[in-house]
Amino acid sequence: MSSIDVPVGLLGYGTVGSAVNRLLVQNADEIERATGHRLRVVRALVRDLGAERAFLPDPAILTTDFAELAADPQVAVVAEVMGGVEPTYDYVLELLRSGRPVVSANKQLIARRGAELFAAASQAGVQLRFEASVCAAIPVIKVLRESLSFSRVHRVLGIVNGTTNFILTQMERGAEYADALAEAQRLGYAEADPTEDVSGADAAAKMAILATVAFGTRVELADVAHTGIEGLSSVHMRAAQELNMTLRLVGTATLVDGRYDVRVQPALVDRHHPLAGVEGPFNAVMLQGDAIREITLEGPGAGGVETASAVVSDMISVIGTQGTGFLQNDACWRRLERLPLGDVVSPYYVHVEVDDRPGVLAEVARRFAEHEVSVARLVQHETGEGAASLHVVLHECRSDALEAALDEIAALDGTRQRPTALAVISDRGVPGLGWA
Amino acid sequence: MSSIDVPVGLLGYGTVGSAVNRLLVQNADEIERATGHRLRVVRALVRDLGAERAFLPDPAILTTDFAELAADPQVAVVAEVMGGVEPTYDYVLELLRSGRPVVSANKQLIARRGAELFAAASQAGVQLRFEASVCAAIPVIKVLRESLSFSRVHRVLGIVNGTTNFILTQMERGAEYADALAEAQRLGYAEADPTEDVSGADAAAKMAILATVAFGTRVELADVAHTGIEGLSSVHMRAAQELNMTLRLVGTATLVDGRYDVRVQPALVDRHHPLAGVEGPFNAVMLQGDAIREITLEGPGAGGVETASAVVSDMISVIGTQGTGFLQNDACWRRLERLPLGDVVSPYYVHVEVDDRPGVLAEVARRFAEHEVSVARLVQHETGEGAASLHVVLHECRSDALEAALDEIAALDGTRQRPTALAVISDRGVPGLGWA
Repeated sequence: MSSIDVPVGLLGYGTVGSAVNRLLVQNADEIERATGHRLRVVRALVRDLGAERAFLPDPAILTTDFAELAADPQVAVVAEVMGGVEPTYDYVLELLRSGRPVVSANKQLIARRGAELFAAASQAGVQLRFEASVCAAIPVIKVLRESLSFSRVHRVLGIVNGTTNFILTQMERGAEYADALAEAQRLGYAEADPTEDVSGADAAAKMAILATVAFGTRVELADVAHTGIEGLSSVHMRAAQELNMTLRLVGTATLVDGRYDVRVQPALVDRHHPLAGVEGPFNAVMLQGDAIREITLEGPGAGGVETASAVVSDMISVIGTQGTGFLQNDACWRRLERLPLGDVVSPYYVHVEVDDRPGVLAEVARRFAEHEVSVARLVQHETGEGAASLHVVLHECRSDALEAALDEIAALDGTRQRPTALAVISDRGVPGLGWA
Repeated sequence: MSSIDVPVGLLGYGTVGSAVNRLLVQNADEIERATGHRLRVVRALVRDLGAERAFLPDPAILTTDFAELAADPQVAVVAEVMGGVEPTYDYVLELLRSGRPVVSANKQLIARRGAELFAAASQAGVQLRFEASVCAAIPVIKVLRESLSFSRVHRVLGIVNGTTNFILTQMERGAEYADALAEAQRLGYAEADPTEDVSGADAAAKMAILATVAFGTRVELADVAHTGIEGLSSVHMRAAQELNMTLRLVGTATLVDGRYDVRVQPALVDRHHPLAGVEGPFNAVMLQGDAIREITLEGPGAGGVETASAVVSDMISVIGTQGTGFLQNDACWRRLERLPLGDVVSPYYVHVEVDDRPGVLAEVARRFAEHEVSVARLVQHETGEGAASLHVVLHECRSDALEAALDEIAALDGTRQRPTALAVISDRGVPGLGWA
């Protein structure tokens, strides 16, 4: 088979962009052997021509002018690795409309403007791929779209933020939150301002993308409820350990009777659940569907090379499949409604600090019962100074019923502070696997 | 987009064949939406026209004559779900040569005759896909071939036999081997004659396929050394627990300086390793490569519907990509040599029953040292009647050095039976994740 030359345009030439270029050069033989194509970067859009660049073979390929890249007739495929939503959105839209397939590593762009871009790509008959926008090299988008397109995936569970997972793993080993965060910053896993990660916002963007692709409906970033890990302490860690669970920041996307619920929250995960063993800065996504039961993909969820690997994979898939690829390009083909937050059903863990005296436990239990919230397990610890900690595991209940019960429990005479509730994750695609 | 009709031929209509037909009928709308194609079974080869068949819409599609199916000009893609190597090989070869793409769920066929079939498909310019031949619906072949084609995967670790993993999980919970096997048979996880599974032979066939695809070289079934789980007992389970490891039947495929080693053996897996948490009849495969570090895929490794799901995925990929697909079809593009067994390097665990008297431990330790086998941890237990159990964890060593040391230890005066050695799995694609 003769080799076909594929000129590549890059939007951006930072960490990921230079890693893409390096992979294309260093693995050119592997790529040609597998695909019959030789990919080479012919043009890269940058902000500053003078900045230092890793692995740049020829400075002449750099330009600060998007129009120059867009007008270059030889550019056959473009990798968007510049980040940001504006002006990136306009650039990608223009490229798609001009018939150029685009591969994007941009989580914010896809989470916020994905639907418009999917539609534009579909109309233009070209591909938009975005594997690198979620969990770097873990090929969850390809698996969802190509292996499971007909599988009626109805639930996605994910640990999709490595920073918080690293922090929680450290806390599990005894560190307090502040120290674990500082360690994450020291190792480069967390930014100087860690808000985006620890608040759950970063994970929310990824879950919006995963839910959109899994359910085929537009899930906006604003439709994803998220709670971060800032409020967690060693109290929760000890409780998790005692209950034989691990504390993780878990994204869940669930389809219930044609409506979706997508959220990110700290949750207690059963020790035997595949997500429980995900440690350090790793990511994992579990897909549950009718025919497949459950498939879990785990790997490093970030990193320049890992992200570049997903970008290159996508480019190879694009150049090897014609037009819109073998799938309809529009990943949002239907419009589903969001499930009201209160309708969501889950088992929960609740922590309440109460006065250590007769009758308080009974009062708490009565409030749950009145709202038809059923208690599965309850552990009480004296904590000294006349106080006690109640650790309660609840059977599945509606979250509005739980909230109502917690409001009343918070108002009880013997309650010392507002109870905290964490979802419990133990559901799997294969019923009766025999745990807890 | 207008819908394109795709007539499908089935070789075999047993559990998997009927599940394929059911998926195609019940999920026809999902498939059409995703791909623009409607797949329907128009011809199915069976042995006995009179046998009862699940979900058979029209008995007229059945035939006992392969030539009739092969001559049917409308058949656009064929799913081989009949099993066996002969006459299946001849049928698949003829179909490929006649320009018909084939999807196979047949582990023995691909492991034994894959190389010839890949070459035939490549020559004919049609696709042969075989996702369902390894780990059912877990899309490890697609990920290896399409996402990681350029990633220089150098190591594959797999729990690829659900029967043995179920038995080992039961033993971990206290069951003895015979009882765990009986339970597996009662639940339908193990055959009446369980030899194929418990001997490691089934896992060896899957590892041969994974190694072939990962390394691009022909790995024959005969090139895969395998040891089963029949010799394991509660002694090994207790030792594993004490060392904070789990006992699993692990397949490993490793590329060392351009030579490969592929084997299946019981191994102690570090509790923090992603494979350690794989429980019950589940499968998981970890892929380690340069750019991706490590990616682990986990899911149910068997089952009629799960296998059918992989078959349908493959058909969808075939009909959506032209000719040989976007990859060169020949998965065996080079010829690598096998690494001699003795050259393989691994950490090991060794169990020795010895006389509980002074000097024996020193003698054992000296034999290891003389062969440059270095001891990492050693635990000694009195077991009564003047005997003691030595549990030794060794640093990485050559397996020929280990064997030589074990031969000498077996011959010692104070040794009561030949020592048993198990590989220790703790290596990951990301160094320094901080365990063990």
